[in-house]
Amino acid sequence: MAKDNLTAVLYGIEDMRLEQRPIPEIADNEVLLAMDSVGICGSDVHYLANGRIGDFILTKPMVIGHEAAGVVAKVGAKVKHLQVGDRCAIEPGVPCYICDFCKGGSYNLCPDMKFCATPPYDGNLTRYYKHAADFCFKLPDHVTMEEGALLEPLSVGVHACRRAGVGLGSNVLILGAGPIGLVTLLVAQSMGASKVMVTDLVQQRLDVAKELGATHTLLMKREDVAEEVAQQVQQLMGVMPDKTIECCGAETTTRLGIFATRSGGCCVIVGMGAPEVKLPLINALAREVDIRGVFRYCNDYSAALALVSSGKVNVKRLITHHFDITETDKAFETARKGLGGAIKVMIHVQPKDTNNK
Amino acid sequence: MAKDNLTAVLYGIEDMRLEQRPIPEIADNEVLLAMDSVGICGSDVHYLANGRIGDFILTKPMVIGHEAAGVVAKVGAKVKHLQVGDRCAIEPGVPCYICDFCKGGSYNLCPDMKFCATPPYDGNLTRYYKHAADFCFKLPDHVTMEEGALLEPLSVGVHACRRAGVGLGSNVLILGAGPIGLVTLLVAQSMGASKVMVTDLVQQRLDVAKELGATHTLLMKREDVAEEVAQQVQQLMGVMPDKTIECCGAETTTRLGIFATRSGGCCVIVGMGAPEVKLPLINALAREVDIRGVFRYCNDYSAALALVSSGKVNVKRLITHHFDITETDKAFETARKGLGGAIKVMIHVQPKDTNNK
Amino acid sequence: MAKDNLTAVLYGIEDMRLEQRPIPEIADNEVLLAMDSVGICGSDVHYLANGRIGDFILTKPMVIGHEAAGVVAKVGAKVKHLQVGDRCAIEPGVPCYICDFCKGGSYNLCPDMKFCATPPYDGNLTRYYKHAADFCFKLPDHVTMEEGALLEPLSVGVHACRRAGVGLGSNVLILGAGPIGLVTLLVAQSMGASKVMVTDLVQQRLDVAKELGATHTLLMKREDVAEEVAQQVQQLMGVMPDKTIECCGAETTTRLGIFATRSGGCCVIVGMGAPEVKLPLINALAREVDIRGVFRYCNDYSAALALVSSGKVNVKRLITHHFDITETDKAFETARKGLGGAIKVMIHVQPKDTNNK
Amino acid sequence: MAKDNLTAVLYGIEDMRLEQRPIPEIADNEVLLAMDSVGICGSDVHYLANGRIGDFILTKPMVIGHEAAGVVAKVGAKVKHLQVGDRCAIEPGVPCYICDFCKGGSYNLCPDMKFCATPPYDGNLTRYYKHAADFCFKLPDHVTMEEGALLEPLSVGVHACRRAGVGLGSNVLILGAGPIGLVTLLVAQSMGASKVMVTDLVQQRLDVAKELGATHTLLMKREDVAEEVAQQVQQLMGVMPDKTIECCGAETTTRLGIFATRSGGCCVIVGMGAPEVKLPLINALAREVDIRGVFRYCNDYSAALALVSSGKVNVKRLITHHFDITETDKAFETARKGLGGAIKVMIHVQPKDTNNK
Repeated sequence: MAKDNLTAVLYGIEDMRLEQRPIPEIADNEVLLAMDSVGICGSDVHYLANGRIGDFILTKPMVIGHEAAGVVAKVGAKVKHLQVGDRCAIEPGVPCYICDFCKGGSYNLCPDMKFCATPPYDGNLTRYYKHAADFCFKLPDHVTMEEGALLEPLSVGVHACRRAGVGLGSNVLILGAGPIGLVTLLVAQSMGASKVMVTDLVQQRLDVAKELGATHTLLMKREDVAEEVAQQVQQLMGVMPDKTIECCGAETTTRLGIFATRSGGCCVIVGMGAPEVKLPLINALAREVDIRGVFRYCNDYSAALALVSSGKVNVKRLITHHFDITETDKAFETARKGLGGAIKVMIHVQPKDTNNK
Repeated sequence: MAKDNLTAVLYGIEDMRLEQRPIPEIADNEVLLAMDSVGICGSDVHYLANGRIGDFILTKPMVIGHEAAGVVAKVGAKVKHLQVGDRCAIEPGVPCYICDFCKGGSYNLCPDMKFCATPPYDGNLTRYYKHAADFCFKLPDHVTMEEGALLEPLSVGVHACRRAGVGLGSNVLILGAGPIGLVTLLVAQSMGASKVMVTDLVQQRLDVAKELGATHTLLMKREDVAEEVAQQVQQLMGVMPDKTIECCGAETTTRLGIFATRSGGCCVIVGMGAPEVKLPLINALAREVDIRGVFRYCNDYSAALALVSSGKVNVKRLITHHFDITETDKAFETARKGLGGAIKVMIHVQPKDTNNK
Repeated sequence: MAKDNLTAVLYGIEDMRLEQRPIPEIADNEVLLAMDSVGICGSDVHYLANGRIGDFILTKPMVIGHEAAGVVAKVGAKVKHLQVGDRCAIEPGVPCYICDFCKGGSYNLCPDMKFCATPPYDGNLTRYYKHAADFCFKLPDHVTMEEGALLEPLSVGVHACRRAGVGLGSNVLILGAGPIGLVTLLVAQSMGASKVMVTDLVQQRLDVAKELGATHTLLMKREDVAEEVAQQVQQLMGVMPDKTIECCGAETTTRLGIFATRSGGCCVIVGMGAPEVKLPLINALAREVDIRGVFRYCNDYSAALALVSSGKVNVKRLITHHFDITETDKAFETARKGLGGAIKVMIHVQPKDTNNK
Repeated sequence: MAKDNLTAVLYGIEDMRLEQRPIPEIADNEVLLAMDSVGICGSDVHYLANGRIGDFILTKPMVIGHEAAGVVAKVGAKVKHLQVGDRCAIEPGVPCYICDFCKGGSYNLCPDMKFCATPPYDGNLTRYYKHAADFCFKLPDHVTMEEGALLEPLSVGVHACRRAGVGLGSNVLILGAGPIGLVTLLVAQSMGASKVMVTDLVQQRLDVAKELGATHTLLMKREDVAEEVAQQVQQLMGVMPDKTIECCGAETTTRLGIFATRSGGCCVIVGMGAPEVKLPLINALAREVDIRGVFRYCNDYSAALALVSSGKVNVKRLITHHFDITETDKAFETARKGLGGAIKVMIHVQPKDTNNK
């Protein structure tokens, strides 16, 4: 086996380094993966710029990357469903398995979760990475490694739509046309939503939303007043949306989410913004509009994979830029500044298409 | 207004008559509809052949027909959402509104339900028919009257899939490729099902299922043993289906539904067959496979309409034959014997396309 | 029939008048009730003091009162389940029956709801009052008229606990020991909650909570910091509550509700306070703590009645004061100022116990 | 540590032996338990008499016993929540943790479940037994070891009532007043059921049900016709039960469960009888009465423990007989023949009350 294990390590704010790390040893329930594709997520950029997200604080060097796919290079003794050479998407969080959350089907809330590139746990923008085998999902031949990496944000969309209870005939309002807003759009459509409106501050992003199937789009401005936009939404959609999914994290859109949602509906908030926000709470309460958060995903990877492998959604459209792992700095700069209309920036640990059929 | 109100009345077993009936007077909450299209349902044929279905017994002449669409000809004083000329699909059952079932969101279980062409209530294969306005759904211009009539069986498919909890990533087994099996297939796909297998005794019907998007089909034989077919299903689908929807009403397929469904899944039974069946109950119990029935539909018409009007499903493909109301006998014979590969037979009360844009 | 129909009419802020009104005529689906007991609710007091609650504004004289029970004096032609002389609790809101909310089992969200003593609809603090018969619940002989009146607040508790999903083994935190907090406590216990903590600013109210079965109480102070109290709650209960039900409407307790609730749990807010509140939203989102409102009740009266008639809860303990309808002013003053440790003030339209067995 | 590890081993049909076995070594996530109390379950008796239950077949000697409580004697290196001396109830099944069922919150359906005294896995009627620590529940001081052992059947009742959706205001019909019927009665009451009727063939058992709080009892006869009993049930309860829980496994009671349940309700079947039963399926389907099985329990032990420790239910009343482990044969005979009105027979591995405070 190769000795090269080039790895992207975040040492601190604005301090990302490429360095060699030892190739990890695996346990009986693990596999070693030769990494292939790793997407850059907003949180990766946030750690680079700020060294922390909320209470998760970088206190020692941490490997970055968690939207990833790789090829199985070694298999632990107790692993049954994977073989060397299997191409896999990696669900990046491994919980404790034994707490009440894990046993109850909500492992995303496990307080002992080890999650890639969330301090103090290492991520997987590296040549060789080990992972719990049961959180590796074998990709069918016709699914590319890049699509495998994109199952991560797609699973957020799945979780968000499931939390919202999107279903047949739902009218859905999606606030924000960034990567998460767009995957949420794709998922909402495939769950049977009737009308899906997407809003954003940038027309170009709305154009992509339209291209991906949004039935309505609405260009917002920073100074918009939530109550007024809510009225516009109703007018344009012809109904009040019964499900709103906020994917920006801004106070205005959160407020808009409440005002715009139909009585008895649900406002799911994916975007995490300021710790404190001023909300028109009584408006939500008196109309029984539920407010629900989304923390990562849980039992959502299979459905995300099924969506991609069946061809029901086309996530490839989201990938706007490709870089080699040696160009990690440039890749992060592109993602961070949204250069060239960047939506999703993909880093290739192996040359592009090495593992695609 | 015209005086002609030609009406198809079932007088008894094998005794259907076309006769003039008075044009009904409407109440404040009703509309009068100039009927356009009425599909023939298996239950209509069953009443013609047997004079009864279970405890519903024909004891006096009854107007037949309940899969219908018409054009508003008069509007009751309290009706707000409809105007003369509006093209409408008709949800054929009107409940009491005030019992616990109605108030609790399960009006299909209302013991005082008045349902078209279910004794003793008249149906709507007639030129003029009155109906509670709140159970009339205005069709957009681009939806045809025939599609409007087909919202009735489509709503059964919606209710069945909702009762089954079909969702993103579901693997669905549909037993039977008659009209109900096929609409259920269409609905399951639009709710995000991954794999959908359809079974039938007739290859020609499976071909239609395939054409409509079934990922797998399986030709069964009358003498098949349920346990063995269950194994075949798993082998072909690559997984055990987590949702099975039985649309035949035969004992074998009901048994198959239980054996084939994944532990913790759900076997929904739409087809109503013999009053007593021999079931492998312990197999269902020990694997917590729920057995659920479907009685018509409830709050499902809007979603059915949204499916059709958005173009997500193509129900037109199900209509194989067209007849004028004056040819009612021939229409019933065609439906009853499945002549010419009949799937859905449509009766036109007004000349075809009179009200289609 | 008597001609006396003394009625408590709110003419404006601080302007309540007792006056004669005509005895109403009933429709076929209604009953006429000889009113017996009417409790005073916080909202009644609020209208007296402010002339409005949110968007509901008093613009013309309105009969006050909506927590009520009466005896059937006349029965409409179509009413089947009630007879003259039946003692009834009155669910005070009558919806439209035909909108999507009504048909879907959420009639409390019906936009055309006619609700007693919510402008512009009259309440029932009057000698003779007519009501839709299907919203009148016959009381068993051993249930008193006062208990019948108290089904109204009790139903709020039922709705709140159902919205929260309180069940076997739930650990519940109830913020506020006013009438709504106390009925919520009673309901939570009967749904199988393990531990129930009640908080309040007044020790005397906590004593009542303790007497009614709270396993823990916590005396708060106005200047308390939500984060700190949340820690205390966890320490005292030994666990984080998985269900929190806010019954104050204050910003501090709403914030406390979020901080205190276990990840994956639910914070239900019954108390309606300021239109805008500052919330630690990200804390709720990242732990998937759902925020849900409660608007009145829906299909909850039967369960509330069953609780009382089975003896599982003792709501009588909540009634601290009794007044005759002629003492309405004094009754309102007592309720408003909490005189004599007032929890629930009951107004008797007929002499106390006239209709109790 | 003692060397004595007397163990009750089932060698085959009617061949139970007491023999010495080595004291087991524990893994890092396990504890060693000095067993205290082990109840005899119907399934234990069934293995003794028949050597099999369905597909579970005794092919080699197996330690019997799975309703058990013990005292921690050794603690594995990774165990955090238990210490030597802790008194524990033992949830007897340990799943694989990593399959979709386990991750989804349904570990009872895990195909790799290792369950005490279900072939080929050993039970715990032995002096020293090791178990996964996360399936050991520490008992508060005031809960006895016998109550700890009874959490096992009580958890079946919890799971059954949860599967049935018993809640506030439910009217529940429980078929069978054996140990499972009785614990289900206790649980249904604590979840807020209004009326609970229990049926049985033996009046003495109904007397116990009455004593434990059943609001109605009904003595059935073997020759009863299900349809007729269903009518009696409705007449006696005053309503049709919306939840029926079958705890016998007989065809008649299963049929009764369907006929008796209110439309839209749920018939949960705990009792496992013949592999094939003749059912009035169409009656269930056309009234949307769901049929659901119960397989053991899942995430139910905590709630069962809370019920006992809070004093809400009194399971001690179910224990009618006590034996020492050396009297295992006599204990099984008593349970098997129902000698002396036996409900639950308890075997003490240590002298009674050794570990009770």
